[in-house]
Amino acid sequence: MALPPTVDWQGDAATGALVIIDQTLLPGELHLLKITSLDVAIDAIQRLAVRGAPAIGVAGAYACVLALRQGLGDAGLDQLADARPTAVNLRWAVEKVRAACSGDAAGALKIARAIHDSDIDTCRRIGGYGAALIKPGMGLLTHCNAGALATAGMGTALAPMYVAHRQGVKFHVFADETRPLLQGARLTAFELAESGIDVTVIGDGMAAGVMRAGKVQLVITGADRIARNGDVANKIGTYSVAVNAQHHRVPFYVAAPRSTFDAACPTGAHIPIEERRESELREYGQAQLVPARAKVFNPAFDVTPAELIAGLITEDGIFTPAQVAAWLDRGGS
Amino acid sequence: MALPPTVDWQGDAATGALVIIDQTLLPGELHLLKITSLDVAIDAIQRLAVRGAPAIGVAGAYACVLALRQGLGDAGLDQLADARPTAVNLRWAVEKVRAACSGDAAGALKIARAIHDSDIDTCRRIGGYGAALIKPGMGLLTHCNAGALATAGMGTALAPMYVAHRQGVKFHVFADETRPLLQGARLTAFELAESGIDVTVIGDGMAAGVMRAGKVQLVITGADRIARNGDVANKIGTYSVAVNAQHHRVPFYVAAPRSTFDAACPTGAHIPIEERRESELREYGQAQLVPARAKVFNPAFDVTPAELIAGLITEDGIFTPAQVAAWLDRGGS
Repeated sequence: MALPPTVDWQGDAATGALVIIDQTLLPGELHLLKITSLDVAIDAIQRLAVRGAPAIGVAGAYACVLALRQGLGDAGLDQLADARPTAVNLRWAVEKVRAACSGDAAGALKIARAIHDSDIDTCRRIGGYGAALIKPGMGLLTHCNAGALATAGMGTALAPMYVAHRQGVKFHVFADETRPLLQGARLTAFELAESGIDVTVIGDGMAAGVMRAGKVQLVITGADRIARNGDVANKIGTYSVAVNAQHHRVPFYVAAPRSTFDAACPTGAHIPIEERRESELREYGQAQLVPARAKVFNPAFDVTPAELIAGLITEDGIFTPAQVAAWLDRGGS
Repeated sequence: MALPPTVDWQGDAATGALVIIDQTLLPGELHLLKITSLDVAIDAIQRLAVRGAPAIGVAGAYACVLALRQGLGDAGLDQLADARPTAVNLRWAVEKVRAACSGDAAGALKIARAIHDSDIDTCRRIGGYGAALIKPGMGLLTHCNAGALATAGMGTALAPMYVAHRQGVKFHVFADETRPLLQGARLTAFELAESGIDVTVIGDGMAAGVMRAGKVQLVITGADRIARNGDVANKIGTYSVAVNAQHHRVPFYVAAPRSTFDAACPTGAHIPIEERRESELREYGQAQLVPARAKVFNPAFDVTPAELIAGLITEDGIFTPAQVAAWLDRGGS
């Protein structure tokens, strides 16, 4: 991709800045945000200017540098770790920085850069393992965005597509638009098309129909948190795709790094599900979509149970849900 | 409902007008369109100012009056009948008027009024049969809008809800927002809330999750065309709801009048599926949702196979898909 990095740090620990693509403006405008204070970083995470579990992790790691150089200490790190409840990578990254840097901003930047480099490498490895699933002529389907814009590297769910594309494999991708915030339409379609991959946007309710028409042979999505038993929390609508994939005998895979797995979480029932503002469904710009007298329910995520998942594509290889706990107990990657 | 009629005729055949609620402006604005020429009527049908198979049928019947008094004859009626390809009610109504009026506008108005009255009565009967399915405390789910705004009466899928509500039964309705044109959010939520029925709008991808959470005991949708074998063409996304209903053992019903059944159509595979403009998914107002380099696929309908359907709620009672052909051969209602 010719795009700038989704998440980066420019400069040194004392005067540098967290730099992110403001994803709320895509695909219309490619705008970089230079962030130099913790509260702006937390706001960017909460309003989804940066989103995607691994990208939030890397952004969170760099935001620790801001918190520490502002003298906000552990309280600042706690506030940052709590900015979004479902994505486990954010807390994972903050705790990794906290444990290793002794409160020192320069030390934090070193750890954050290591997390960033590791994410790039992890994406590449996920892409390599997952690419083996993609055969010439296949139709793929993905939901939300788990691509380069969701990580500091080439993505998780989309990484196998980038690797297969570079290997010269021809395939086609359906991108669910992913209501309410349209990450599939705005982000997945954007980054795949920019890379020359053949992509078609469909409404979330159309996925079942394209499967029934025999146009989909493989589903790959990302994840926001994965429990020990292989249950996956991901963007709302993922579970519907998984049920439809099973009904149409299409294998359903989830691509995610070790940092998205929560070894302490026994099942999906233990994953907190963030409910977001009603306005995401009630309004679009100035337009009122839902009448005031009707209620709105807007959970950001749902849980896909392990039994619907053919495999989990990680930096250590592809595991069945039943193999996850043993891998986590071996220490992961 | 305190709303004006969805479709009506005001005045006599020579100088009167087809009057419809412009549904493209709901829920923000309640505006009545007075239509006095065939081309404006066809435009209103095509841009979904009036939509819903039965309402299109009644509007089409009244539009015949306009075609005939403009001297457009059979060519005008043909053009009208072809305005939307999937909803069988439109052609059904036009042919009914054509066959009975001998090209006379006043005669056409008489037939159109009879079709209108019959639709009101049909909705009431569907409501009565369907209401028996709704038990106190149930959660219901519907997709798109098959309510008062989709008919000249109290609706098809929503008619059982109106009848049960008047009988004092307490229940709750989830309305899928129904991308791309949001008929669930804009129209179903509007008319149910206006009538005092407890309604919550969800994204199309959330239906599976609310079913898994045990919040849905009954699904009722409308239909745009039903084949002899009970296969149902309805708004895109309906099939996904049906697959999810089966997975969660929630009974899935379709409510539709005899005029929506196409006795000449053997299965759903024979129903033409209208593809609509890409802009419905690409844009919202001024906002670009999908990047220009990505493709868009925008079928308006999908087909739900008979095996996923618990019953078809009609003006003659509730039939299983297997009973449909015999009912049609008896002459329907």
